[in-house]
Amino acid sequence: MERPGTWHDRRVGSRILARCCSWEAIKRTLPFLCWLPQYSIQWMQLDIIAGLTVGLTVVPQGLAYAEVAGLPVEYGLYSSYVGCFIYCLLGTSKDVTLGPTAIMSLLVAIYTSGDASLAVLLAFLSGCIQLALGLLKFGFLLDFISYPVIKAFTSAAAVTIGFSQVKNLLGLKDIPRQFILQVYETFHKLPTIRVGDAVLGFLCIAFLLALKFMKEHFPRVYRGMPRCYRLCYIIVWVTTTARNAIVVVAAGLVAYSFHVMGLHPFILTGKTAEGLPQFQLPPFSEKIDNRTVSFSEMVQDIGPGLFIIPLMGLLESVAIARAFASQNNYRIDTNQELLAIGLTNFLGSFLSAYPVTGSFGRTALNSQTGACTPAGGILTGFLVLFSLGYLTPLFYYIPKAALAAVIICAVAPMFDLSVCKTLWKVKKLDLLPFLVTFLLSFWEIQYGILLGILVSLVILCYSIARPKIKVIDPHGPTLMIMSGLSFPSVEYLRDTIHEKAFTDSLPPSVTLDFTHVNVLDYTVVMGLREIQHEFRSQGRTLLFSGLQPDIHQILLAADLKDFQHPLSVTTADLYIDGSVEPLLNNVPKASSELNH
Amino acid sequence: MERPGTWHDRRVGSRILARCCSWEAIKRTLPFLCWLPQYSIQWMQLDIIAGLTVGLTVVPQGLAYAEVAGLPVEYGLYSSYVGCFIYCLLGTSKDVTLGPTAIMSLLVAIYTSGDASLAVLLAFLSGCIQLALGLLKFGFLLDFISYPVIKAFTSAAAVTIGFSQVKNLLGLKDIPRQFILQVYETFHKLPTIRVGDAVLGFLCIAFLLALKFMKEHFPRVYRGMPRCYRLCYIIVWVTTTARNAIVVVAAGLVAYSFHVMGLHPFILTGKTAEGLPQFQLPPFSEKIDNRTVSFSEMVQDIGPGLFIIPLMGLLESVAIARAFASQNNYRIDTNQELLAIGLTNFLGSFLSAYPVTGSFGRTALNSQTGACTPAGGILTGFLVLFSLGYLTPLFYYIPKAALAAVIICAVAPMFDLSVCKTLWKVKKLDLLPFLVTFLLSFWEIQYGILLGILVSLVILCYSIARPKIKVIDPHGPTLMIMSGLSFPSVEYLRDTIHEKAFTDSLPPSVTLDFTHVNVLDYTVVMGLREIQHEFRSQGRTLLFSGLQPDIHQILLAADLKDFQHPLSVTTADLYIDGSVEPLLNNVPKASSELNH
Repeated sequence: MERPGTWHDRRVGSRILARCCSWEAIKRTLPFLCWLPQYSIQWMQLDIIAGLTVGLTVVPQGLAYAEVAGLPVEYGLYSSYVGCFIYCLLGTSKDVTLGPTAIMSLLVAIYTSGDASLAVLLAFLSGCIQLALGLLKFGFLLDFISYPVIKAFTSAAAVTIGFSQVKNLLGLKDIPRQFILQVYETFHKLPTIRVGDAVLGFLCIAFLLALKFMKEHFPRVYRGMPRCYRLCYIIVWVTTTARNAIVVVAAGLVAYSFHVMGLHPFILTGKTAEGLPQFQLPPFSEKIDNRTVSFSEMVQDIGPGLFIIPLMGLLESVAIARAFASQNNYRIDTNQELLAIGLTNFLGSFLSAYPVTGSFGRTALNSQTGACTPAGGILTGFLVLFSLGYLTPLFYYIPKAALAAVIICAVAPMFDLSVCKTLWKVKKLDLLPFLVTFLLSFWEIQYGILLGILVSLVILCYSIARPKIKVIDPHGPTLMIMSGLSFPSVEYLRDTIHEKAFTDSLPPSVTLDFTHVNVLDYTVVMGLREIQHEFRSQGRTLLFSGLQPDIHQILLAADLKDFQHPLSVTTADLYIDGSVEPLLNNVPKASSELNH
Repeated sequence: MERPGTWHDRRVGSRILARCCSWEAIKRTLPFLCWLPQYSIQWMQLDIIAGLTVGLTVVPQGLAYAEVAGLPVEYGLYSSYVGCFIYCLLGTSKDVTLGPTAIMSLLVAIYTSGDASLAVLLAFLSGCIQLALGLLKFGFLLDFISYPVIKAFTSAAAVTIGFSQVKNLLGLKDIPRQFILQVYETFHKLPTIRVGDAVLGFLCIAFLLALKFMKEHFPRVYRGMPRCYRLCYIIVWVTTTARNAIVVVAAGLVAYSFHVMGLHPFILTGKTAEGLPQFQLPPFSEKIDNRTVSFSEMVQDIGPGLFIIPLMGLLESVAIARAFASQNNYRIDTNQELLAIGLTNFLGSFLSAYPVTGSFGRTALNSQTGACTPAGGILTGFLVLFSLGYLTPLFYYIPKAALAAVIICAVAPMFDLSVCKTLWKVKKLDLLPFLVTFLLSFWEIQYGILLGILVSLVILCYSIARPKIKVIDPHGPTLMIMSGLSFPSVEYLRDTIHEKAFTDSLPPSVTLDFTHVNVLDYTVVMGLREIQHEFRSQGRTLLFSGLQPDIHQILLAADLKDFQHPLSVTTADLYIDGSVEPLLNNVPKASSELNH
C-alpha cells in the first residue's frame, strides 16, 4: 500500500504539471484565446471605431512625445505600433493601449540625453528586465508603491512635462533640461519670444480646449431624433475626438502656406527619416566622433535609468490597467501585463523604438469610444505604419508649437492636487510621502519617486514597530495588543509591559490579550519568553488570553506557558461558525505543559 | 482672553523645556548620578573584585584581539581603557564593559587591512556616527535587526574568528584573510606546521578548557564550611577566573626560558611600543611610501566599513546590554547606550584606539562576579593603564599561539546552532534569514548581515502584503480580515473580494468584518472606495462590520458608506470596559451619510 504522503505528493506534483500545461494555462498566457471564439460583428464595429480614434491620437502624440524625449520625431511613431499588435495577443485589459507617453519620454530624455542609440538600447534592456520580472511573477513588487506616491509623481511630472514645452510654444532656444533652471531661463529669455510660434501655440491650445469642452458638453443623441441631428452629432464627435490630429494637420497647412509664400514665422519639425524602420539588432555599441562606445560604457551612461525606466514603465501600465479594470468591472493579471509590456519593449528595440508603456489618455479614449477587445489595436498599428510609410515627408511642415500645444493639453488633466484634501481628512501622515515625492520630483524625478517609496515604507515599518497596545484595567492589568507582533516591535512591547507591570501596586499578574494578534515571529516569541522568565523569577505571572489557534500553536512550540482561557470570545465565535478547526485538541496539550 | 489653543501650545512648549532641563533629564544623561548617592562600602567591595577580574581578562584579550584586527598588540590595550571610564559615567547597564571584541576586531581587519592610522580614523568616524545616532534618538533602528540574523551572524563570526587563529596556533605563515581561501590554504600548508607553536597552543587550549570546566563544576562554599575549604575555594575561583591572564603569563615564562637558553621554538609577539599613547588628533591623513594619503582617500579605503562598523558596534553593545538587563531585571536606555559607545570611540580615537563595543564574555564575567554598578570599570581601566605603563617590555615574550588559544576559547561559546531546532518548531520561515546570514557571512561578513536584514524585512513586508482573510459563510459571504491593512495589501484584498463576490450565486451583498483591523491607510481606503463603487454599479452592496472607532472615523472621512452594526462584539466589549470613548456620536453621522 502506498503511504498517503507519497500519494499526496504525487498528486500535488501532477496538479502543478497539469496547471502549467492545461488549456487554462495556455489561455492565461495568450488571453486573446478567451475572447476570440466569442468575437462578433458588433464587437468588430466598435473595435474598428476605437482603433481608428486611438490611431488618430497616437500619430500626433507620438511625434510630440519624441520631442519630449529629445529624439527625432519619427522615433515617436517607431515606438507606437509594436505595442498595438503585441498587446492584442498578450494583454488582459480590453482598454489599455501601449505606446510612447509623456512621463516615459521625460525619463528617456533624462537618461539618454537625446542619444537615439542609447534610447533603443534602453528599450531592449528594459524589455529584458520587465520580461524577467513577469516570468518570475514579481508583479507584487508594484504593490509597494502607494497611492499618494503615484499621485504626487504624476502631478509633478505633469508640471515638469508641461513646462518643458513652454520653450517650443514660445519659440525660445537654449533652455536647459533641469526644471528649476528651465523655469529661470524661460522667464529670463521671455524678451526673445518668437511672435509667430507664440500666436500659433496659444491658438492651438485654445482650439484644443474648445473642442474638448464641446466633447464634454455636447448633448447625446438618441434613436428617435431626426437624421440631421444625428449626422451633426457624428461630425462633432469625430472632430472633437480627432482634435489632436486636426490641430496638427491644420497647423501644418498654415506653416506650408507661409512656406510657399517664402515666410518662416514658425520653428518647424524639419527633415525626418522616411519610411519604416529596418528590423535590426539593437545597438550594442555606437560610434561617436570616430570613437566606438562599448556596450558597458553605454550601460554606464544610462546609469540608474536601467532600474527606474523598466519599473516606471510597469507601474504606469499596471496602474492604468487596474484603474480601467475597476471602472469597467473586469480583472487583469498583473504578471501577464508585465509580460506584454516587456515583450513590447524587447521587440520594439529591434525596430528602433524607445521605451513605451500604457498611455492614460489614449486608454481613456479607447474605453470611452467603446472598445470591446484589444483587437482595435491592430487598426491603430496599421494607421501608424501607414503614416510612417506615406506621410513622413509631410512631417517637415509641422510647427513645434503645435506639438507643444498637444502635449500641454494632454498632460494638464494629470495635475491634480485635490487629493491633498482627502489625505488630510483620511490620514495626515500619508501627506508626508505625497509631499516628499511631489517636491523632490521637481529636482530630479527619480529621487522624488524613490524617496517617496522609502518614506511610505518607513511609515509602514513604524506602524509595525509601534503596535497599538490598549490597557484594560478591571481584572488586574490586561494589555490588549491591537495588531500582529513582528520583530521590530519586541523592544517596544517589553518596555510597555515593564511600564505597566512595575507600577506602585506591583500587580501579581499581567495579562496579554492576543485577540487581535495574528502574526507572531521567532524574535517576538523569544522576547515573550524572556519577559515571562523575568516575571517568574519575581514570583509573578505573565498570562496570555484570546489566543488564535495558530498563535497558540507557536507559543506551545516555543515552550511558553500560562495560557489563560485560550478560547476567547473571538476564536470561540469562529469555532461556532465552523470556519476553524476545533481548538479542543490543543487544550489538553496546554494543560499538560502547565503540569511540567 | 487667550485662546485655549495658544495656552495649550505654550504649556506644551514649557513642558518640553522642563523635560530637557529637569533633574530627571540630567540624571538620564548622566546615569551615575542615580547610583552614586546610594553607593555603599558593600557595593564597592563587589565592584572592586569585578573590576579586577575583568581587568585580568581584558589585558590578554586586548593583546589577542589586536592580533585579530591585524594591528600591533599594544593597540588592543590602547582601546581597552577609555570605555571603562566613560561607561562608568554614561552607561545605563551595571554589567556592560566596553573594549576590543572578536567581531569588531575581525571587521576592523577587513576594512583597514592592518593599517593602524585607518583603524584609528575609523574609530573617530564611527564615534561621530554613533554619537549622532544617539543624539537623534535613532536607537529604534536596531529594532529592525531580528534575532535569527543576530544569532546567525554571531555563530558565523565565531567560526571565522576561531579559524583565523588556527594559523597562529600552528605557526603557519602567509595565510589569506578570506575565510574560504583561508580554510583551503591552512589545510594545504599543514605539512609546514611548527611543532613548538602547535604543542604550546594545544596545551594552552587544554589548560583553559580544564579551568573553565573546574569553574563550572566546583562546588559552592557556604558560611558554615571550614576555613580551609573556603580558602581553597577562593584560590580555585581566582585561578579559574583569571585563567586567560595565567595562561598568557605562563606561556610567556616558558618562551622566556627557551629564549634564555638560546632556543626559539615559538613565534613571539615581538617588539611593541612602550608606554601610554599620546593624546593627539586622529590621523586625518597619512604618509605611505613618501606619498600623502588624503582624508577623502582614507575614507574611500574604509568604504562600506564606515556604515557597517558603527552599526555593528551599536548592535553588539545594545544586544548585550539588553540581554543582561533582562537577566538581572533592570531596564537600559538604548539611546543613552548609543551615546556612551559613541563617545568612547570618539575620545578613544584621540588616544590611538581602534573601534570598540560591548564584550559579551567580559560582560558575563562582570555580571557573574557580582558587579553592582559600572564603577568597577575604573579599576579595570587603571589595570590596563598599569599594563601599558610597566608591562609592555614583557609582551615581547608572549607566544602568538597562546593568544590564539585565548581567542579560540573565548569565541567557541558564541557558536550555537541549537537555535535552528527552535526556529523549525516555532516559525520555519524565520530559518531563511538565519541561513542566508550564516552562509553568506563566510563569504563576506557584511553581505551576510545586510542580506539577512533584507530577507527578514522582505518576510515582514510579505506578511503585510498578504493579510490573512478568513471566509465566514452562514449569513451571506463575510470576509474576516485578520490584521491591519496597509498599502501593499490593497490589490490582494481586491482580488480576494472579487474571488468571493463573483461566485456562481452572485450574492447581493458581501460583508467585510473589520474586527481585527487596527491600521488603515489612504491607499487602502481608496481601494475600498473603488470596490464599493464597483459593487454599487451592479446594484449590490459591500458592507463593513466590527469597525473600531478610529477606523470608523477614517472610513467616514473618506465618504465610504454602508456600515453594518458599527458596534461589533469587540468594540462593544471595550466600550463596556470604559477604555474607549463611546461610539454613539459617530452613529448619527454614519446614518446622515447614508441619507445623502
